[in-house]
Amino acid sequence: MTHAQAMLETHPIGADLDNAKLLGCIEACYDCAQSCTACADACLGEEDVAMVRRCIRLCQDCADVCIATGRILSRQTEYDAGMTRAALDACAQACRICADECERHAGHHEHCRVCAEACRHCERACAELLVAFS
Amino acid sequence: MTHAQAMLETHPIGADLDNAKLLGCIEACYDCAQSCTACADACLGEEDVAMVRRCIRLCQDCADVCIATGRILSRQTEYDAGMTRAALDACAQACRICADECERHAGHHEHCRVCAEACRHCERACAELLVAFS
Amino acid sequence: MTHAQAMLETHPIGADLDNAKLLGCIEACYDCAQSCTACADACLGEEDVAMVRRCIRLCQDCADVCIATGRILSRQTEYDAGMTRAALDACAQACRICADECERHAGHHEHCRVCAEACRHCERACAELLVAFS
Amino acid sequence: MTHAQAMLETHPIGADLDNAKLLGCIEACYDCAQSCTACADACLGEEDVAMVRRCIRLCQDCADVCIATGRILSRQTEYDAGMTRAALDACAQACRICADECERHAGHHEHCRVCAEACRHCERACAELLVAFS
Repeated sequence: MTHAQAMLETHPIGADLDNAKLLGCIEACYDCAQSCTACADACLGEEDVAMVRRCIRLCQDCADVCIATGRILSRQTEYDAGMTRAALDACAQACRICADECERHAGHHEHCRVCAEACRHCERACAELLVAFS
Repeated sequence: MTHAQAMLETHPIGADLDNAKLLGCIEACYDCAQSCTACADACLGEEDVAMVRRCIRLCQDCADVCIATGRILSRQTEYDAGMTRAALDACAQACRICADECERHAGHHEHCRVCAEACRHCERACAELLVAFS
Repeated sequence: MTHAQAMLETHPIGADLDNAKLLGCIEACYDCAQSCTACADACLGEEDVAMVRRCIRLCQDCADVCIATGRILSRQTEYDAGMTRAALDACAQACRICADECERHAGHHEHCRVCAEACRHCERACAELLVAFS
Repeated sequence: MTHAQAMLETHPIGADLDNAKLLGCIEACYDCAQSCTACADACLGEEDVAMVRRCIRLCQDCADVCIATGRILSRQTEYDAGMTRAALDACAQACRICADECERHAGHHEHCRVCAEACRHCERACAELLVAFS
């Protein structure tokens, strides 16, 4: 059992959302945030850095949104559906936009292929949780 | 001239958005992030902490969204309208929700009154920038 | 293989630090950051919230330091030993201080026991990497 | 009066550190964090991006440390000298290292000159507060 799962299960109040989907999304957010920070840096270290400016930019933005969303999802006390929905909406879009860009470079930069995978996973995890709000 | 304004004016590429509104929003985001972090902590130090749980929670969430949005707005290179819009949408909503809650406690907790002011200011700044996307 | 490991192995430049220890520390930082954010929130939801104020405070601080350190360690391009060492020093101390506090409440709050575990793990991971700087 | 000052003065507990120095440091941290994020991005947009890789890297790291420190300093409840000192130490070093790098490019990149100014200001503000710990 991961610490994230243990933290969720030992919360005095518990979550208002499906535990399994919530846990998956929390882990996806932190994982994606790390992948994006690492990918932006890997791109910065590439010889063709001028060709991957956009990728660096979008990875930095995505990492920021994912960290914010991961933190919000990690909180169960006094849950506010509006706040959580707003974060999930932004995160799903950020990951989609970033994944689109990383996939463009995936053929010649392996780290972009890996990062795109992390972004798509997070995009899907956020979208799955958002279903509960419709 | 603030550092934020100087940074914006010395950028090699420049912004795709109205400079004055963008600068106002960047400064509002960082200011609101700080106010919310401080307010969540002030509430934690109050004797009636159990009564302001929701305020603490929403201030923490809002601070996280504002930092992410402030960072994204601070970047002009390879600007992506979709990414920026997603962040502004989330931030405007987060600030509105947090301001609503802080205003509920503004009568007996001065720090909540101040924080609500910072949140409303940020909410408006984000909403003004969002007009450019419609 | 985790995304974090894949990102590290596909970096064009590679790390100046032992890969296995670096990866362990990156993962420990993000994991600890999430645990601390979740623990601060779980404590906020406890009936005896007034008794765990200090725990909430230190968990919030620790989460902030861990995220910053996790991000810095995720970057290999133009590695600066001074910058990395400064972050690792702060993170090891933050985790130690937070773990000490969480352990005080571990007997009656399971989430504090779990969080202390995540903090000790991160403290050790940072300390192990710091050995390379002596 | 800034929101930051108002938040500090309306805190139920108050600070354990000199209010004026603390306020100055809080504001310096958030200001420096924004400047560094903006500078890293401005460098990314420069034609000679390959020449300013190190500057981009250090500005990103510094922004992360400054945000963490700014948040920690914004909290007065259950103040822990060890935690605060660790953050200030890291921040002072991060700003010094980043300022050194930005100053190297200040002659041909105005945004680097501005950012170095913000970093030196934050370095000094952290150093001033650290005096209280000796």
